[in-house]
Amino acid sequence: MTPTELKALVRTIPDFPKQGIQFRDITTLIGHGPGFSASVDWLAEQVEGSEAVAGMEARGFIFGAAVAARLGLPFLPIRKPGKLPCEVIGVDYELEYGMDRLELDPQSVSDGPSVAIVDDLLATGGTARAATKLLREAGATVTTAAFVIDLPDLGGSSRLLAENVAVRALMDFEGD
Amino acid sequence: MTPTELKALVRTIPDFPKQGIQFRDITTLIGHGPGFSASVDWLAEQVEGSEAVAGMEARGFIFGAAVAARLGLPFLPIRKPGKLPCEVIGVDYELEYGMDRLELDPQSVSDGPSVAIVDDLLATGGTARAATKLLREAGATVTTAAFVIDLPDLGGSSRLLAENVAVRALMDFEGD
Repeated sequence: MTPTELKALVRTIPDFPKQGIQFRDITTLIGHGPGFSASVDWLAEQVEGSEAVAGMEARGFIFGAAVAARLGLPFLPIRKPGKLPCEVIGVDYELEYGMDRLELDPQSVSDGPSVAIVDDLLATGGTARAATKLLREAGATVTTAAFVIDLPDLGGSSRLLAENVAVRALMDFEGD
Repeated sequence: MTPTELKALVRTIPDFPKQGIQFRDITTLIGHGPGFSASVDWLAEQVEGSEAVAGMEARGFIFGAAVAARLGLPFLPIRKPGKLPCEVIGVDYELEYGMDRLELDPQSVSDGPSVAIVDDLLATGGTARAATKLLREAGATVTTAAFVIDLPDLGGSSRLLAENVAVRALMDFEGD
């Protein structure tokens, strides 16, 4: 399937979660077998050569785990607070309103692997930057983040590049 | 990898989330590239012939999405309340303490597909039974549920069988 065909599988929901936001919904893309599989293939090509794939709870688990399994790589779940049953390291980061927190099992990267971040959507990049910080604090190398959708107007890509993380995106939606 | 080798990759955390519970943690299994991939292969074999794979937020996304991508099938996320941006149908179900709720985009099963449920762990079966009910209400057929881990002492398998859902599990932990 072509990128244009894959983009047509993304559903746009107006005014969600609030007035004026066009929500790009990947539910319809992953609900299309060939479309989901082609997206996973594309993401897997972008991160090939990495030693592990990390994904952020919860939607990031969908593409991240599928990409890791496709490449035969470890999948490292980056979770919301209190979900991992082991000792964790965490990072607090700012959202548009308020703060959030991500946690990681540091043992999962104790041998210092090269880890690629995979997620469905890149907006301001806040979550991906927090995940990068967390992985690096635990000893991993992070040089690539691959997304299904980039919203370039929100500047996430340049913010990640400033942290020396190269961004790959299968499609973008501009001007919203 | 053999089932015995895969079982050895599961980490047991004593007294989590409370005293007396041996928590079977799949973080270490999915953090092992060949182990994760072999588990996904095994699950994919069990649900081959289905037309879609459903997984429950959040850990169920990890194996469910990887299995769907491996088979080239749609992945249907069954989510916690308020997460799906579209119109949803929901089901409330009982937990050990209190209630929980799952939601699904009914459009994702509007053509009445045969859907397999994939999850990491089968305990009492409450979540899987709620997912089955939800999928069937939306028009899907559900005949198979595949898990990485079964805790047979908790009776989930026989409860699912009573709902005409056959259970497959890669490994079990008895007598805890």
